Amino acid sequence: MDKLMRRLSTQDQNFKQVFADLLAFETVSDPELLKTVDQIIADVRQHGDAHVLKLTQQFDRHPAHQFSELELTQEQLKAAFDGLSTEVREALELAANRIREFHQAQKQDGWTYVDALGNTLGQKVTPLDRVGIYVPGGLASYPSSVLMNAVPAHVAGVPEIIMVVPAPNGELNPLVLAAAYLAGVTRVFTIGGAQAVAALAYGTETIPSVDKITGPGNRFVAAAKRAVFGQVGIDMIAGPSEILVYAEGQNNAKWLAMDLLSQAEHDTVAQAVFITPDEQLLNDVADAIEEHLQALPKADIARTSIENRGALVLVKDRAEGVELINQVAPEHLMLCLDEAVEMAEEIRHAGAIFMGRYTPEAIGDYCAGPNHVLPTSGTARFSSPLGVYDFQKRSSLIMCSQDGVKTLAKTADILAQQENLDAHARSARYRYQ
Amino acid sequence: MDKLMRRLSTQDQNFKQVFADLLAFETVSDPELLKTVDQIIADVRQHGDAHVLKLTQQFDRHPAHQFSELELTQEQLKAAFDGLSTEVREALELAANRIREFHQAQKQDGWTYVDALGNTLGQKVTPLDRVGIYVPGGLASYPSSVLMNAVPAHVAGVPEIIMVVPAPNGELNPLVLAAAYLAGVTRVFTIGGAQAVAALAYGTETIPSVDKITGPGNRFVAAAKRAVFGQVGIDMIAGPSEILVYAEGQNNAKWLAMDLLSQAEHDTVAQAVFITPDEQLLNDVADAIEEHLQALPKADIARTSIENRGALVLVKDRAEGVELINQVAPEHLMLCLDEAVEMAEEIRHAGAIFMGRYTPEAIGDYCAGPNHVLPTSGTARFSSPLGVYDFQKRSSLIMCSQDGVKTLAKTADILAQQENLDAHARSARYRYQ
Repeated sequence: MDKLMRRLSTQDQNFKQVFADLLAFETVSDPELLKTVDQIIADVRQHGDAHVLKLTQQFDRHPAHQFSELELTQEQLKAAFDGLSTEVREALELAANRIREFHQAQKQDGWTYVDALGNTLGQKVTPLDRVGIYVPGGLASYPSSVLMNAVPAHVAGVPEIIMVVPAPNGELNPLVLAAAYLAGVTRVFTIGGAQAVAALAYGTETIPSVDKITGPGNRFVAAAKRAVFGQVGIDMIAGPSEILVYAEGQNNAKWLAMDLLSQAEHDTVAQAVFITPDEQLLNDVADAIEEHLQALPKADIARTSIENRGALVLVKDRAEGVELINQVAPEHLMLCLDEAVEMAEEIRHAGAIFMGRYTPEAIGDYCAGPNHVLPTSGTARFSSPLGVYDFQKRSSLIMCSQDGVKTLAKTADILAQQENLDAHARSARYRYQ
Repeated sequence: MDKLMRRLSTQDQNFKQVFADLLAFETVSDPELLKTVDQIIADVRQHGDAHVLKLTQQFDRHPAHQFSELELTQEQLKAAFDGLSTEVREALELAANRIREFHQAQKQDGWTYVDALGNTLGQKVTPLDRVGIYVPGGLASYPSSVLMNAVPAHVAGVPEIIMVVPAPNGELNPLVLAAAYLAGVTRVFTIGGAQAVAALAYGTETIPSVDKITGPGNRFVAAAKRAVFGQVGIDMIAGPSEILVYAEGQNNAKWLAMDLLSQAEHDTVAQAVFITPDEQLLNDVADAIEEHLQALPKADIARTSIENRGALVLVKDRAEGVELINQVAPEHLMLCLDEAVEMAEEIRHAGAIFMGRYTPEAIGDYCAGPNHVLPTSGTARFSSPLGVYDFQKRSSLIMCSQDGVKTLAKTADILAQQENLDAHARSARYRYQ
């Protein structure tokens, strides 16, 4: 029988090239789409609420007649929360509480010290004033995304958290509103697309301009975020979801197969990679994947993802596994072996590391505590999970004493002259002469 | 006599609009330039060293015949350092040591905790593997920029720091090479422009690809950095330099005037703003600026900057000053008054805050210790000075115990079902059933 999933071995002659090609994922920018997005941004800047309303009626088929109908009240959010079943409400509360607890540990404080010359130096940490959270509508309208974006902002101390979520045909997911209620969102507008990003970045009569926009969205939203970057801050533009599972020793192949499929079911271009030095386990996982696919509701999506971008990779030993993992810099990494903690110490690049056999990636998506917004497509080489630090910023503090400044001013004078910056040199010189 | 610098008062009827217009600075993207830059990037990706050499010969009129001539040796860097005068060498060493000391205080460590269920959660912090530092050539080739970009990377523990600096006609500033030697730069290539950014982002036969590119550059460099963002990390795209000086009480108007001019001399579009509730001081500073301009070598640049983008603003009181400062979110802020520390507590947005009368901004450019790469054009609302944290990234750590996972897996199961993600739900369910 022809197996579904690509099998590789580091012993294959062309392994390096095949593996590199497998990882390659380049989003091509579409000039027509960029033009459309630029036009939407220009029109929203010029016409404000009226244009946002018009596009919302047009693209989302929203029945609103006036802009004011596009804002939800806190009472509506609370009603959504109160309307949940006990089971779901408790699950959402547990998730929100755990996410809050973890993110509180990320909060940074300022500091100062006095140097040997008697000058005070330091760093002040402040929250952003106002942020925008983009939440996709329709099928991908996930309450977990609301928690993962809004809770860190709330923990950071951001006073105003503005959420936008499109409501196709005027329909909203009550769980998304309940999550907004739990997470401390200040205002919610039922708008989406590039027009929502433009409204958040530049403000309209009704929507206040924010300082940073985070959250996932379709290619229009991604292009709009890229376009307004600089006017406001943005989080990373997310690529398709990925998981890399490394396993050794006693493992349940069915569990591992389902962990791989939990990413594959997200998207046909999601990537699930399994690495092991154990050929028997590799065969068992391959079989389990095929078995699971018989019963999964999203089997079509998962199958395409597994066929096109998935791989089962046989390595010689753990050291080779570490090397491949650091090359991939995976968004999600599961280390299913007895020495998971020791192995994690060797990992230089990963969004989140799930250690041991009882830590499925899926709990990280909802309620383990750490953020599920993670660097994709190898960007864990240089970026971090979304966190409280994304909603805080720093200012340097410098205060010299009349004596303490002298050495510094002399030094600045000398170096400024070398750079031919005369006003700099003179401004420093005043303080020591 | 017609005064040079714009004078405003918060009591003016149209103050809000005039002040907002003064702050507005929008860089317009030039489609032709973007096309040129995209082509350079594509060509460097395809032809590697050969294309970089060709463009370096063409744009920089560099006399190199082979690519290998574009790399400097550590011996060349050391020779540049050894060739400095004692005065300059000591100044550069003092600056490097102070920058290193301040940035060491920024270094972040990982942490873990065990939750009430017995699960371990945490955050691992790792340095980037390899970074690229862009240093402009020619007139704007500043040794201080080398220190401010390379020292934080070195303190973060980045093992490889690759510096690029164009050498027009093959000429280099020895002080820049000496700074690279002091700062711990690993390799130096004498290339620049979009081709240098492309080479760092994608790698060539000789130049290794990096994970992040920082440092200032002209509009080609800025456009190239924007284009490779995602493939690698980048720092903020810097706008023109700005200073905002607030003063009250006993102050030397000549000092304050020179502090304002020290930013104005950078660039004709730099911005210097003076705010005070003291009309006499405002007049004195205006006079001192005009007097200083008679003697400054860069008077032409400074005069244009002051005339086009500068302002002297009279406020009613300190509270109004705080409000304006938070609206501007200045790159550099000087608070020249007895209660500078108290006033700084009210400031929510600024790149760096210089407190008291003995803390000229110029010492921050060279040797106070904090970074001189700061958020411009109001981006201090959402971003921070360049720092060690820009060269470190975080990975989340999650390790559940066999018992501890049960509550989490149940919760994830419930929420995943609500999101119609069946593989997620099943993967969680395996761990508690």
